[in-house]
Amino acid sequence: MKVPNWLVQRASQTPDRTAVVGLERNYTFRELLNESLTVGGQLRDKGVRPGDHIGVLMSNSEQMVVLIHSLQQLGCVCVLLNTRLTVNELSFQIQNADIRYICTEESFLTYCPSADVEAILMLQELFNGSEQNSLNPRTEFELTQTCSIMYTSGTTGRPKGVLQTYENHWWSAIGSVLNLGLSDKDCWLCAVPLYHISGYSIVMRSVIYGIAMKIYREFEEEKINEDLEVGKGTIISVVATMASRLLAQLENRSYSPLFRCFLLGGGPAPISLLEQCKTYGIPVYQTYGMTETCSQIVTLPPEYSLSKLGSSGKPLFPCQLMIINSNEHGEGEIAVKGPNVSPGYFKQQEANKKAYHDGWFLTGDIGYLDEEGFLYVIDRRADLIISGGENIYPAEIENILHSHPAVEDAGVIGIDHEKWGEVPFAFVSVRYDVNKQDLLKWCEQHLAKYKLPHDVLILDRLPRNASNKIVRRDLVKKLPRR
Amino acid sequence: MKVPNWLVQRASQTPDRTAVVGLERNYTFRELLNESLTVGGQLRDKGVRPGDHIGVLMSNSEQMVVLIHSLQQLGCVCVLLNTRLTVNELSFQIQNADIRYICTEESFLTYCPSADVEAILMLQELFNGSEQNSLNPRTEFELTQTCSIMYTSGTTGRPKGVLQTYENHWWSAIGSVLNLGLSDKDCWLCAVPLYHISGYSIVMRSVIYGIAMKIYREFEEEKINEDLEVGKGTIISVVATMASRLLAQLENRSYSPLFRCFLLGGGPAPISLLEQCKTYGIPVYQTYGMTETCSQIVTLPPEYSLSKLGSSGKPLFPCQLMIINSNEHGEGEIAVKGPNVSPGYFKQQEANKKAYHDGWFLTGDIGYLDEEGFLYVIDRRADLIISGGENIYPAEIENILHSHPAVEDAGVIGIDHEKWGEVPFAFVSVRYDVNKQDLLKWCEQHLAKYKLPHDVLILDRLPRNASNKIVRRDLVKKLPRR
Repeated sequence: MKVPNWLVQRASQTPDRTAVVGLERNYTFRELLNESLTVGGQLRDKGVRPGDHIGVLMSNSEQMVVLIHSLQQLGCVCVLLNTRLTVNELSFQIQNADIRYICTEESFLTYCPSADVEAILMLQELFNGSEQNSLNPRTEFELTQTCSIMYTSGTTGRPKGVLQTYENHWWSAIGSVLNLGLSDKDCWLCAVPLYHISGYSIVMRSVIYGIAMKIYREFEEEKINEDLEVGKGTIISVVATMASRLLAQLENRSYSPLFRCFLLGGGPAPISLLEQCKTYGIPVYQTYGMTETCSQIVTLPPEYSLSKLGSSGKPLFPCQLMIINSNEHGEGEIAVKGPNVSPGYFKQQEANKKAYHDGWFLTGDIGYLDEEGFLYVIDRRADLIISGGENIYPAEIENILHSHPAVEDAGVIGIDHEKWGEVPFAFVSVRYDVNKQDLLKWCEQHLAKYKLPHDVLILDRLPRNASNKIVRRDLVKKLPRR
Repeated sequence: MKVPNWLVQRASQTPDRTAVVGLERNYTFRELLNESLTVGGQLRDKGVRPGDHIGVLMSNSEQMVVLIHSLQQLGCVCVLLNTRLTVNELSFQIQNADIRYICTEESFLTYCPSADVEAILMLQELFNGSEQNSLNPRTEFELTQTCSIMYTSGTTGRPKGVLQTYENHWWSAIGSVLNLGLSDKDCWLCAVPLYHISGYSIVMRSVIYGIAMKIYREFEEEKINEDLEVGKGTIISVVATMASRLLAQLENRSYSPLFRCFLLGGGPAPISLLEQCKTYGIPVYQTYGMTETCSQIVTLPPEYSLSKLGSSGKPLFPCQLMIINSNEHGEGEIAVKGPNVSPGYFKQQEANKKAYHDGWFLTGDIGYLDEEGFLYVIDRRADLIISGGENIYPAEIENILHSHPAVEDAGVIGIDHEKWGEVPFAFVSVRYDVNKQDLLKWCEQHLAKYKLPHDVLILDRLPRNASNKIVRRDLVKKLPRR
């Protein structure tokens, strides 16, 4: 099915509304369209053709938003590259994704494996074109066409390229609006990476809804709090650590009445954080989603944001949810279905066979539904620790550690154990000096004996990936030699 | 493509929100689902099968909303019958639409042509079922399935049954929300007939958005104004005459701050009315749509509601618009495209061939786009008066007559004329006694000579159909014998 070219339609409907509040300049929708077509003209003149896979290796900026739109206008597949990757990881993804050109900026040039692509296109060159050379916009978007490819954060195994169609992005935006509502005064703050679905989906919502997005180069709690205090944003996408840093910096101040909510994703949030938001009067829409579902797929409706603390909620309007292979407690793998779910991984027939069954996508995450059908996400299945036949979810232990006032961050993995098969091992970073024994005692007070960490190791900082998820395979490397 | 069963999904997401504020009772979404399944069970027990065409001949009520949902739950095609039809007209539609059963209420029983159907199901019987006999809801709706059939108001020619799919209703609701925004506090007032797309589409929006709809048996300006003054509604769908009656009754009072807007459809609105709304500070979203587009397809975005007075605006986000066969002034037939556009008329191959070209639907209406792409609807093509080679649009003359303080309603048709081929002839109803010559003089002051009505006839009331559109072929019958 075809739909009108989104940016053209938006620029026709509400040309003068602010589309992007950038680091150095703002764009209205009319300006955003014009700039995207000008940059699109440059891309075309440098040999970029419709259907090409184009890598984008950039930090958050208004130019990156323009570039994303330019590639859509050209009909290219935008492959979003994580700026924190090593050269080897980059090289793998570039080859794996059949990337022809890379668009990047000065600061990443040295990381760019130029041997793997036909050419590297520098941001500055793309933005000095003239309007006369502008691209003619496509009239329509074919919904089934691939719009973007993102590599899964790869907390387990080798990254896989997730295909995201225009249709996926469309239904994701629509599912969200039917839950969160919409005002033409909305402004969505984007302090998450644009190369990640959490950021990219804000670009899509902005153009589909006709609302502003405000871009931050990176996450700076002070600046964001300042903006939210004076009403410069109404919604912000955050992961747990970001929310926690915002609250710590906010102290006794509060947000503008225009502020609507945190959209909190990227893995289970510690209960302590949700309770803290509650005392601050900040509505939290806890959400569960992933690259494969083009952002949210399960979100807690506003009515329940406080009474169902810790739940990710119910499937968005166009989506469905099911727990499969559940144990006697009803805990099992989370399977999801919906038009926002990716058609599959790029060139990964085996992985696709494993992940897709009868139209359902098996997420690999473990969860359960309460008696009213609310989803509680427990953990990644791959992270499950099986100790003496008992299932132990790292997140449960992490939650307990998080609730200790000294603990800044916590991560738990399973280590081999002669008697029990596996036992949990904890890593923390701390706000102030604390005794390891205190932390273990804290755990004893809150956890069943079989769940107690075998040991706790204090690190300066826990390994988190670009989506702020704990990278457990990096924790393994930090284990003391035994 | 399949989507989750809307009402089931809505009742799961927001079970306790008010769905319907009825004449005698209210329903939450949970209650609405349960009642729809109970009534669905009754229908099933009376022999109604999925796929059946079921006629509904009822006045606005919460029961009618329930029945509409019951038929969706059963997978039946709901044929909405206009309660103002004569027995002969009804009989034609019932046969033409392959209706198996009719659901109706006491007051329409005598009009019901029982010979044409297998059985007539009375409202009361359908609502006394027990929950144990409830229908098992379908998991999913197939978007391409026909949901409803409505006969076009037939201001010209014989009525045709417009097929409306689930997909049509879905995209109509989504196109509207991206323009009007959404708050979980919204309540859409339904004082237009539920058997008409203007009313039926409110039922769909209510369940898709999770907002309340408030039902009026018929249009009562006093009651509606009372409700809007105290914040019992945020949006109301109106046609021009309704808006005009609301304002006349409102006098110097004003609506609650919760009130958001008039959604004004059903034909071109007189400029004088729009100006009056402006002075009252009432935001008006003028809109252009029809049964074939499942309600709105072109709506004036909020930014322009005052600066583009008289325009219907721009296509909704998923829709497209084009003027074809235009004359030297850019005036031509309005063609539209979008996923909310009906796949065609039921069993009308010839009419479908004429109306559909390359994915575009030819509306039969005349309009033009201004330099910024805003649509101005001039008139129905069939109503065009050609006088001495000049095109005369009845709506233009009607607008002038409307702006005369004494005129309550106005309608203009073309009559044969020896010299000019056709000339305009005006009909009015008046608020107070007024001289015919005064009205003609008024026209002379505002209209080119060739557009002046040949004569004016004062009637008690102008013939308007169930959608409040002037029925010009009935005006013809009122012409004085010549």
